Amino acid sequence: MESMNRIVKTYGSSVFQYSITAGLPELRQYIADRYNRIFGLTLTPDNIIITTGSQQALDLIGKVMLDKGDGVIIEKPTYLAAIQAFSMQQPVFYPVELTEEGMEPEQLEKALQNPVKFIYAIPDFQNPTGLTYSAENRKQVYEILKGKDVVLIEDDPYGELRFDGERLPYIGAGKLPNSILLGTFSKTVTPGMRTGFIISENKELLKCISVAKEACDLHTNIFSQYLIWDYLTNNDLDMHIAKIKVLYQKQAQAMMDAMDRYFPSTVKYTKPHGGMFLWITLPKGVSAMSLFPRALEKKVAFVPGDPFYIGIENANTMRLNYTNADCETIEEGIRRLGELLKEL
Amino acid sequence: MESMNRIVKTYGSSVFQYSITAGLPELRQYIADRYNRIFGLTLTPDNIIITTGSQQALDLIGKVMLDKGDGVIIEKPTYLAAIQAFSMQQPVFYPVELTEEGMEPEQLEKALQNPVKFIYAIPDFQNPTGLTYSAENRKQVYEILKGKDVVLIEDDPYGELRFDGERLPYIGAGKLPNSILLGTFSKTVTPGMRTGFIISENKELLKCISVAKEACDLHTNIFSQYLIWDYLTNNDLDMHIAKIKVLYQKQAQAMMDAMDRYFPSTVKYTKPHGGMFLWITLPKGVSAMSLFPRALEKKVAFVPGDPFYIGIENANTMRLNYTNADCETIEEGIRRLGELLKEL
Repeated sequence: MESMNRIVKTYGSSVFQYSITAGLPELRQYIADRYNRIFGLTLTPDNIIITTGSQQALDLIGKVMLDKGDGVIIEKPTYLAAIQAFSMQQPVFYPVELTEEGMEPEQLEKALQNPVKFIYAIPDFQNPTGLTYSAENRKQVYEILKGKDVVLIEDDPYGELRFDGERLPYIGAGKLPNSILLGTFSKTVTPGMRTGFIISENKELLKCISVAKEACDLHTNIFSQYLIWDYLTNNDLDMHIAKIKVLYQKQAQAMMDAMDRYFPSTVKYTKPHGGMFLWITLPKGVSAMSLFPRALEKKVAFVPGDPFYIGIENANTMRLNYTNADCETIEEGIRRLGELLKEL
Repeated sequence: MESMNRIVKTYGSSVFQYSITAGLPELRQYIADRYNRIFGLTLTPDNIIITTGSQQALDLIGKVMLDKGDGVIIEKPTYLAAIQAFSMQQPVFYPVELTEEGMEPEQLEKALQNPVKFIYAIPDFQNPTGLTYSAENRKQVYEILKGKDVVLIEDDPYGELRFDGERLPYIGAGKLPNSILLGTFSKTVTPGMRTGFIISENKELLKCISVAKEACDLHTNIFSQYLIWDYLTNNDLDMHIAKIKVLYQKQAQAMMDAMDRYFPSTVKYTKPHGGMFLWITLPKGVSAMSLFPRALEKKVAFVPGDPFYIGIENANTMRLNYTNADCETIEEGIRRLGELLKEL
């Protein structure tokens, strides 16, 4: 509320008027400064376009880079709304297995033999699995992509939310000139204002994305851009993130403890070092989708694995989110889910 | 600022959180009530999707309805950013002459012999021409479309800004079941918050649009939806619009008076009854595009006609906007433009 009152008083009608497609220069400068400081990049505001959430970045990248039949390499499984966004252009997906280490290198090399336009990866606390690429895997992926005429898209909405272990470097950002890095304020400031950003060293690509964005929504809500910029400038984001991380770690631990207590030992799960999700693997042949309505009856919700894959039905996997409920609620939810799993 | 403080106090974190794709139910109810009252429609919130500006509505309609090569009927000339948005899907455009009466009926019938998915029309104070379809022309267009398997899109960002004559009924809304009506708060409340809406009686079509929107940006900025809704509920929109209209009428008149005084008599212009624009036709063979850099040197800007057409270069037409400068500035701008025109 302080920021709202301040931007209206300071900038008057500018916060309500039409604005430029690339986004508020001050906000882009803030982003450049932050990424340069943390990751040693050399960004200027010209390397950044503000988007209407990261989701719009996915839509724009699909529009600009894909024609029907073009190849897209994705993780298996991957973020369902990325599949949705890219699917609008009717590409061919080449899923590459995501392991505890990261993207499976041999499968990646094989997939690259197809006419692929880009690789879509979420190296930190992946959605849906919560997995993080290891330092070694990042090097391997970089070496495979170096010099190839293919764009690496690193989608990083959760990187700031590491509650365990050390931050790892980006694979492409600052190293592969045709890479794109996606970021967002949805997980650190507010999701409801739909404010994300695209970072790239390739200004020709950014120009195409900007032209496409103009045809999509002219520009992202300028009031919210001013507001988020003012909020970030006048508050300690790192302190705020530190607070969230303590909370998420505690809740993740509560979820894992409860699963150890209430789930049959045949059920496996990933152990996230940050982010919002973990990924359950049920015994072979058990469909998470068919479990879903029965869980809902007990007022427990999760996301069944199916929509995170291309063409797989009744997968034995599911995504759980530990950020939006307190430890007690999490324990009770896992207890009820455990009962159902034991019945099965 | 009152609304901002009130919604944060009343709704707390809801105004900052993720929300539903169709948009804030209260805002959709407000829109339904307003259109039902003014136009005698029978809308419910289920007939309405909130979009990230009207521009997003154009993008979504293109995505949902067009495959490569499909036909789109447009006015000649038409809104340049609609051409941009639809072009993403590589359709074939069939332009129909826009006259002082509206859409030329014979050309419309002829264009409909092609495999056309939809007709895009701006019947009130059209962008770029400022022209309005007559009551008679609306009836003709309705009779031509009635019973045909084609969607009429009526884009109406300016309809509320009528400063002369009586409001005319919509062509499709409430009458043609497959018609779509587009509206926006950009011209009446604020453009910077990118809040528009799609209205249709065809709920199947709306469902497809909603799925496409989810892949584009999940939902429109929810803070701004609450804010605009609160503002509209606690303030008299009609009084605000009445104030704008007086201003725009005065400025439109100042522009027309100045053109009569300073322009060669071979230059023609449209006389708008509302909206924001008027349209200049120069003598045949005089290119508005080549005039543009010379006008800029004299610090006068306008939009040359070319981008409002398909495949026409060096058109002898241009769009002027009278809403964003005071009468004195308008007169001085027209005087300078007149000097250039006389030199030509």
